[in-house]
Amino acid sequence: MEQQRAVEPHDVVDLITAKRHGRPLDPDEISWLIDAFTRGAVAPEQMSALLMAIVIRGMDREEIRAMTAAMIASGERMDFTALGRPAIDKHSTGGVGDKITLPLVPLLASLGVAVPQLSGRGLGHTGGTLDKLESIPGWRASLTNDEMVAMLTDVGGVICAAGSGLAPADRKMYALRDVTGTVAAVPLIASSIMSKKIAEGANGLVLDVKFGSGAFLPEVADARELATTMVRLGADSGLRTVALLTDMDAPLGRAVGNANEVREAVEVLGGGGPADVVELTLALAREMLALAGMPHIDPAPALRDGRAMDAWRRLIAAQGGDPLAALPEAREREIVRAETDGTVQRVDARSVGVGAWRLGAGRARPGDPVDHAAGVEVLVRPGDRVRAGDVLFVAACDHEGRMSRGLEALRGAVELGAGAPEPRPLVAGRITADE
Amino acid sequence: MEQQRAVEPHDVVDLITAKRHGRPLDPDEISWLIDAFTRGAVAPEQMSALLMAIVIRGMDREEIRAMTAAMIASGERMDFTALGRPAIDKHSTGGVGDKITLPLVPLLASLGVAVPQLSGRGLGHTGGTLDKLESIPGWRASLTNDEMVAMLTDVGGVICAAGSGLAPADRKMYALRDVTGTVAAVPLIASSIMSKKIAEGANGLVLDVKFGSGAFLPEVADARELATTMVRLGADSGLRTVALLTDMDAPLGRAVGNANEVREAVEVLGGGGPADVVELTLALAREMLALAGMPHIDPAPALRDGRAMDAWRRLIAAQGGDPLAALPEAREREIVRAETDGTVQRVDARSVGVGAWRLGAGRARPGDPVDHAAGVEVLVRPGDRVRAGDVLFVAACDHEGRMSRGLEALRGAVELGAGAPEPRPLVAGRITADE
Repeated sequence: MEQQRAVEPHDVVDLITAKRHGRPLDPDEISWLIDAFTRGAVAPEQMSALLMAIVIRGMDREEIRAMTAAMIASGERMDFTALGRPAIDKHSTGGVGDKITLPLVPLLASLGVAVPQLSGRGLGHTGGTLDKLESIPGWRASLTNDEMVAMLTDVGGVICAAGSGLAPADRKMYALRDVTGTVAAVPLIASSIMSKKIAEGANGLVLDVKFGSGAFLPEVADARELATTMVRLGADSGLRTVALLTDMDAPLGRAVGNANEVREAVEVLGGGGPADVVELTLALAREMLALAGMPHIDPAPALRDGRAMDAWRRLIAAQGGDPLAALPEAREREIVRAETDGTVQRVDARSVGVGAWRLGAGRARPGDPVDHAAGVEVLVRPGDRVRAGDVLFVAACDHEGRMSRGLEALRGAVELGAGAPEPRPLVAGRITADE
Repeated sequence: MEQQRAVEPHDVVDLITAKRHGRPLDPDEISWLIDAFTRGAVAPEQMSALLMAIVIRGMDREEIRAMTAAMIASGERMDFTALGRPAIDKHSTGGVGDKITLPLVPLLASLGVAVPQLSGRGLGHTGGTLDKLESIPGWRASLTNDEMVAMLTDVGGVICAAGSGLAPADRKMYALRDVTGTVAAVPLIASSIMSKKIAEGANGLVLDVKFGSGAFLPEVADARELATTMVRLGADSGLRTVALLTDMDAPLGRAVGNANEVREAVEVLGGGGPADVVELTLALAREMLALAGMPHIDPAPALRDGRAMDAWRRLIAAQGGDPLAALPEAREREIVRAETDGTVQRVDARSVGVGAWRLGAGRARPGDPVDHAAGVEVLVRPGDRVRAGDVLFVAACDHEGRMSRGLEALRGAVELGAGAPEPRPLVAGRITADE
């Protein structure tokens, strides 16, 4: 320890011990920790012990701000001022059947808002936007920064993988959190998301923070705390940020998987699609338009008159995809039926997510392949009356061996009861920096 | 996670998450964790996150027992029944100037009790028995199990390095705890110490559990909890165990270092030496004699009549050392004097330990060399009256560059005041399984 002090300004064991006892770390200590971890002077086993101490002891606002700043400082920052148009970003904390990015980005692009959408891949029971889009033959997720700017200029929107240049400390830390049981904690989730979003350099950000069984943080109070923390981090960094708290207790829409979610997104872009997917797409679009200085524009007509669909086709084609190509179809299908009569009380998003994951639509570890054709079609919603024998789900997969475990998760996913369930609004709250 | 479940009976992230939320782990889960960590199926960063969760959330008695059993099961067990004499072991939780093992083992050997003393090296501000003995020209710490049994048969005692065969899981875990701020926690300290002691297969064990500024756990309540936990673990495994709670707020004896501590131990073996070192040696010897079924033997005469000194010389010579050789002397000496008149209220063991460490007597990292000649001579005790200019410490080292930082730690180590300090008994408590 003495030796280390000679070359490093802090001793990592002292800082871990301090956080273990609940002492807040100084901005200077946090900045050193993140930098030293990124360059390898703090070992992964040291960082994971610190992360567990942070998860249990928490971090105050100042610490979270310092953590976010340190992760931003670990990499490059982007800048879209040369576009001459407001660049507005969106982020969802992830859910089951959450394909909203797919209709939302072309919808906004068609209305004159530039949307630089850096997306991720799925892990566990939640899907990832890039996995869904890779169902489309030819479409590629990786773009250079120059290609990204060209897309924003020519098409008005882009959905691509985050390059390795933005907040590399966060990437390294997330890989560690993923295997050490330290993912689900507000300070770490907030700084992870916001460091990338702030580094991205957009002019405004709309957050879709989910709660309910299919969300990262199922409790609405935790989701609210996360949303408030992120909105404040945005405000503290000069990034105007608004968050919607949205219900993820039931899957979004009918399709859960990859190719089937693209099909459903295309329905929405064509003026149709499930009511909840349309509602959330429009609610987020209105927030983004307001941040772009266009609060009076109604986005709904662009879904019906072909403008959003045109933008979608340009967007897919510009990244090598064929927007008219047939999407993969699964070889095996099985039906899950209601065993009794009743009213649907809940469709448990988490069980449906686990079912789709087991069928092959998701991955257990980063880097695993996904089966684009696998997935679940959800045929009932809370409040629907069903009779014994009615179809609840259609499960699809390409590997027979995966079917039975997928069906097992789906069989317990629908709860039937006598009366009508308590109605749950899809958008349950709105959080701004003024609160 | 799904993939891992196919080959391993547990998912490590689930277990980390459970402990993060404070759920006690089942014996079966703990057994798997320790085994999987030892063979590399649980990564160091996963174990360190779990260790931090254990440190903060704690472990119940059943968990600590399962952890200890799993660490014992990771390696070999020794057996001294063939000796035909009781083998009684001793362990100290470590302190400043704690050279008690050196006079204690030959004293017991001279009285017919076999003492298989597996010792460690120092780290940080606390010294290690092997480092001290290595001041003696020729003495070697590493013995095979056969050499160890031969020493116990021929000499009646042995002080050597623990081989790699006993509780290898503990060794691997300790290396991790050392760099991740997860050392000082009762469940982990207790299972670490007791797994090795139970695997060692002695017939009885006396624990010297220290509290005060120079101890691992400065608070007496924590030391008592550790002692109680270890005594129970011993009882649960059929190893009769007694613990003394002893004061480590001031250094033990006058010598703190390596060669100088050997000299002081030899004084005690010759019937002299500082009163506190003699007192603690005899207190521990009486407990060990009682466990060996010889409660009526008084150990004190053997220190005066040469029996203990003879056993010491045989013990050192049998391990290649020359008991009459000159020990290393430091080239540089500096004196720390009292700046005012007063009565010594405290001699802070931790500051003296840090001072000796900085002078070169200790190491910052496992594997670093130590300077056998470096150390501190402590010339005052709590209650002594001193006048300005009186000598408090003599600091010795071989590298001039180390002197100033060592002196800096020593200068704040003595607290002077007006009245007599509250007397502190050296042995503050005794804990047995009956309590």
